Amino acid sequence: MSENKIPYKIYLEENEMPTAWYNLRADMKNKPAPLLNPGTGQPLTAEELAPIFCEELVAQELDDTTHYIEIPEDIRNFYKMYRPSPLVRAYCLEEKLQTPAKIYYKFEGNNTSGSHKLNSAIAQAYYAKKQGLKGVTTETGAGQWGTALSMACSYFGLDCKVYMVKVSYEQKPFRREVMRTYGASVVPSPSETTEVGKKILAEHPGTTGSLGCAISEAVEVATKNPGYRYVLGSVLNQVLLHQSVIGLETKAALDKYDIHPDIIIGCAGGGSNLGGLIAPFMGEKLRGEADYRIIAVEPASCPSFTRGTFAYDFCDTGMICPLAKMYTLGSSFIPSANHAGGLRFHGMSTTLSQLYHDGYMEAVSVEQTSVFEAAEQFARIEGILPAPESSHAIRAAIDEAIRCRETGEEKTIVFGLTGTGYFDLVAYQKYNDGEMSDVIPTDEDIAASIAKLPQIG
Amino acid sequence: MSENKIPYKIYLEENEMPTAWYNLRADMKNKPAPLLNPGTGQPLTAEELAPIFCEELVAQELDDTTHYIEIPEDIRNFYKMYRPSPLVRAYCLEEKLQTPAKIYYKFEGNNTSGSHKLNSAIAQAYYAKKQGLKGVTTETGAGQWGTALSMACSYFGLDCKVYMVKVSYEQKPFRREVMRTYGASVVPSPSETTEVGKKILAEHPGTTGSLGCAISEAVEVATKNPGYRYVLGSVLNQVLLHQSVIGLETKAALDKYDIHPDIIIGCAGGGSNLGGLIAPFMGEKLRGEADYRIIAVEPASCPSFTRGTFAYDFCDTGMICPLAKMYTLGSSFIPSANHAGGLRFHGMSTTLSQLYHDGYMEAVSVEQTSVFEAAEQFARIEGILPAPESSHAIRAAIDEAIRCRETGEEKTIVFGLTGTGYFDLVAYQKYNDGEMSDVIPTDEDIAASIAKLPQIG
Repeated sequence: MSENKIPYKIYLEENEMPTAWYNLRADMKNKPAPLLNPGTGQPLTAEELAPIFCEELVAQELDDTTHYIEIPEDIRNFYKMYRPSPLVRAYCLEEKLQTPAKIYYKFEGNNTSGSHKLNSAIAQAYYAKKQGLKGVTTETGAGQWGTALSMACSYFGLDCKVYMVKVSYEQKPFRREVMRTYGASVVPSPSETTEVGKKILAEHPGTTGSLGCAISEAVEVATKNPGYRYVLGSVLNQVLLHQSVIGLETKAALDKYDIHPDIIIGCAGGGSNLGGLIAPFMGEKLRGEADYRIIAVEPASCPSFTRGTFAYDFCDTGMICPLAKMYTLGSSFIPSANHAGGLRFHGMSTTLSQLYHDGYMEAVSVEQTSVFEAAEQFARIEGILPAPESSHAIRAAIDEAIRCRETGEEKTIVFGLTGTGYFDLVAYQKYNDGEMSDVIPTDEDIAASIAKLPQIG
Repeated sequence: MSENKIPYKIYLEENEMPTAWYNLRADMKNKPAPLLNPGTGQPLTAEELAPIFCEELVAQELDDTTHYIEIPEDIRNFYKMYRPSPLVRAYCLEEKLQTPAKIYYKFEGNNTSGSHKLNSAIAQAYYAKKQGLKGVTTETGAGQWGTALSMACSYFGLDCKVYMVKVSYEQKPFRREVMRTYGASVVPSPSETTEVGKKILAEHPGTTGSLGCAISEAVEVATKNPGYRYVLGSVLNQVLLHQSVIGLETKAALDKYDIHPDIIIGCAGGGSNLGGLIAPFMGEKLRGEADYRIIAVEPASCPSFTRGTFAYDFCDTGMICPLAKMYTLGSSFIPSANHAGGLRFHGMSTTLSQLYHDGYMEAVSVEQTSVFEAAEQFARIEGILPAPESSHAIRAAIDEAIRCRETGEEKTIVFGLTGTGYFDLVAYQKYNDGEMSDVIPTDEDIAASIAKLPQIG
């Protein structure tokens, strides 16, 4: 092992770091369908989006032709505090699995937000500051996005209000304290602080919340308070744009050592990590310059790609947000309270949905206990305690590596290790105590929420 | 800022990583006093230490003449999974403080143990494995050492039993789960599982525990069970030897950019981080090749350097361990339950004690609330949520940087950022809620425990 020329960790030099984000949509022949105004059914204009989102972010959201968008210097400087993230060669995991496959992972967890979410949070906070806003509102599920946004807002001196999905709020009291340490206020969702929250609580008194419903609350607060805008940590095109820094760094690191991956694997909730990780590789694929197997991994308890439908739907439970054409389980779908961690959004990025629909990528769903089994195995071998979300990708990567052992193929697998599990110990404890189970929605569950889809086009 | 030639983070290449540990004692004219057998009052021999410690670790413990000891390849490979750690230029902190000082920190928190402790844990587990042992026992205070040892034992397939200071066990339930995820068993100390634990509980029924008392329990279990040895995460010479990897990397990174530090700052509990960080710099100082101000920072609630006495004392509360000549508050000293985090050992490394006694380094003590103030400031500016222990060094570094602002001196400050505070959110919550206070031992408190020192030489 010691004679290997490829180091355990590939770090880019500061001057090798990306200076522009890559806008995958510019290379798509079939563009993602536009967001629609739920009132008129017509594509949303920049003017209509301006009361919700910051101006420059609206421009990025709607821009599907510019290939590269320069990263402002202030953001590049912030990136330098915690990036580049390492591309790690999983030598120990390969040896343990006795696989001829070569496994790499891009580790985004070495920052206090604990995940890749900071890449977009700092960009969104920057544009809000540039626009002269007072603050921003958002939702958070597992808490990684909320933490990332708190850090970013603290850096730029912005007020930050976070609606946190109630089940996560209860499972992760310490997440709240990190956000408070960064000066944010955190509200469990659904709450009595918004009209939509009151309505949801009245209809579902015992609800543990959902990302869709926390979004509704955060949007309501942003649009009702002057000087505030709403920001979102996933799903949107702008987020995938910012997260392309993951894929660009990964590709630069691989190119540095002349490594050509065969399979690229990412976990998928709303698509922020997956869309960012695969961006430059998918670009090559779309342009016919290279081919890769690209695999989205989602939880069996919230399987939008593998069991959802490709249609226009609301992005939120309260049905006040724009309509997006995506793979969706229906905006009223709420994953079992048993489900640990993030990846609990009912839909999926429109960009990734279109690419999946057009056959450019695959999707698999994996069950929770097998995900934690992979997580524990990985923690013991590679020394990093992974987030439950990230562990979905670990599961799929291990499965592919075992397949290589069986076929003897020396494939090169790259997966995204989006974050750490330091705030997910309640879930780990359940797993350690043998009390974790898999709750998979029935066909009837999914049919019921899909039946409520809005009737569009 | 963007024109600066020194990057935000200096990473060594894999082939620039240290291949040998540096044994500071070899360059000391006044060697640290030997450990004594508490029964005979005579220096302990390798034979006497063998029932407690692994053979090779005993040899390292007693070796005060060999300058460099090669790092075995298996350990070097494990190091490559999470090392080199970055040497970070705190550009943002400098700007915020408006100081002409240049601030660097060596960040050891980017691994799942959350601290530098893994550097010695993997070495100690390696030697235990090499000796064919079944397992090891240890104590842990804040939990970082226990986590590190769990990870190391899991990697080498060793059984791991951890006695965790009760107050930390209660404040940090999730620490226990990380250790369990790595297959360790964790017992709150004092416990009913040992004779010494039972005795301490009988004498002090409400005790929140201390490191000294957890050590007694772990040693008892190791010596009573065949195939087990005791391992320790600080204080000992062997630990400082392994931790020299921190200082060696720091020095190599500084040399790469021709940076000469003026002040080197580290927090000090038992001395593992401080001893490791300063090792090569202190070596130069001892050899007369360079001069540095070296500052140990300790909590005002457990001030062994600044208010203790330099004398032979027991390393543990149960008085079953060897006697060490060190700065000590007395082995019966227990810091206020109010004190958060580690740095709660009553004594100090014999090596560091001798160096301090001989005037080669300074020491300051800082109060808890001012430490958390520095921690929060640092988190918001540099983006890393620091461990309470590490934040003692941050406090001192900020104070020195402010002094530079006042005098206009462009000093170069290097401090050790030993770890992250992800498992210290109970303490952060107290601080955020304004409920943290400073409890400083009275002169009478300290005199009372020092009065119980054994009468030696």
